Amino acid sequence: MAGGGVPLLRVLVDMDGVLSDFEGGLLRDFVASYPEEPHVKLAQRKGFSALDQYRRLREDLGAKIAKVYESPGFFLSLQPIPGAIEAMHEMIQMPNTEVFICTSPLRKYEYCVSEKYVWVAQHLGPKFVDRLILTRDKTVVSADLLIDDKDTIKGVEPNPSWEHILFSCCHNKHLKLQPPRRRLESWTDDWKAILESKRFK
Amino acid sequence: MAGGGVPLLRVLVDMDGVLSDFEGGLLRDFVASYPEEPHVKLAQRKGFSALDQYRRLREDLGAKIAKVYESPGFFLSLQPIPGAIEAMHEMIQMPNTEVFICTSPLRKYEYCVSEKYVWVAQHLGPKFVDRLILTRDKTVVSADLLIDDKDTIKGVEPNPSWEHILFSCCHNKHLKLQPPRRRLESWTDDWKAILESKRFK
Repeated sequence: MAGGGVPLLRVLVDMDGVLSDFEGGLLRDFVASYPEEPHVKLAQRKGFSALDQYRRLREDLGAKIAKVYESPGFFLSLQPIPGAIEAMHEMIQMPNTEVFICTSPLRKYEYCVSEKYVWVAQHLGPKFVDRLILTRDKTVVSADLLIDDKDTIKGVEPNPSWEHILFSCCHNKHLKLQPPRRRLESWTDDWKAILESKRFK
Repeated sequence: MAGGGVPLLRVLVDMDGVLSDFEGGLLRDFVASYPEEPHVKLAQRKGFSALDQYRRLREDLGAKIAKVYESPGFFLSLQPIPGAIEAMHEMIQMPNTEVFICTSPLRKYEYCVSEKYVWVAQHLGPKFVDRLILTRDKTVVSADLLIDDKDTIKGVEPNPSWEHILFSCCHNKHLKLQPPRRRLESWTDDWKAILESKRFK
């Protein structure tokens, strides 16, 4: 509760695919590193795991796509998703609202982890570095909303406190969500209406 | 709930001062770097912030002690707290128990963040890297217990789900806790009894 007794709305915002353009950067670097190899166009991406889809395309392409996102500099080089930076700056200033960035690092944490911190510092600034949560299990973080492009989010907590809002991304566009599940189509979509729908519940 | 309907107990274990000997490493490196300067013996440490105590000793010593813990290699060099590694390996194998490492990185994240990951990988192994949560606000992580040497843990959530068990450390030994607050004196103290006291509540 805030000082005046107004409940705070807590929002978790995922990083890859929601704030930073993981899929765009991955395709760009894959084509640059392996120009002779076939690739999956963004419009053809399906399923959260690029590794799985490249493996299905040809078994040995799995190792190649993984090498791209495990390379030094990859996470730092990602471009912001259009509108993400502006939305975050607006959200952090909203009254009775607490926003955190909640991101799952790769198991190969060597470059990913520190580059995520540097990315947030460079694109969003130090007050968002303070609000960065790294966890491979998001179900144990409590909030009203989790805005995330991963279609299914599982962990040790079977009943997470947040409502998962699916952020649209090339790999999840084809999914038909079962009601009452909701999407945020982009940062130009009405994210404020989704936040407001969770207040006073 | 586990498959059989038995509730899972979730335990968060802090890193600096609970798993890794931050205070011991800090004094060791401070004396090595500034042998001519006065230092605070571990028995004389009081209050969570070493920076504040060194500043009180002499204003300019604050910058020197901070330089020690902000140096590359500092977090990686910390020794495990006696019994911590064994306790964690035992805890992770306990039925109906989920353990996570929950640690707050420095604002100067450059070395601290990645060295925490490497430390956990080296001392505890990859299954604990999967269970590492980095957050500057622990009140938004939900659990039954938080074992932490920091005397007061605040954040945006005024009513965290966990009971904070104060892990004894040089800087908090003198504190008299108000009941019902509890301590874990060390990893040879009865941490299993504390876990059991939280089941079926």
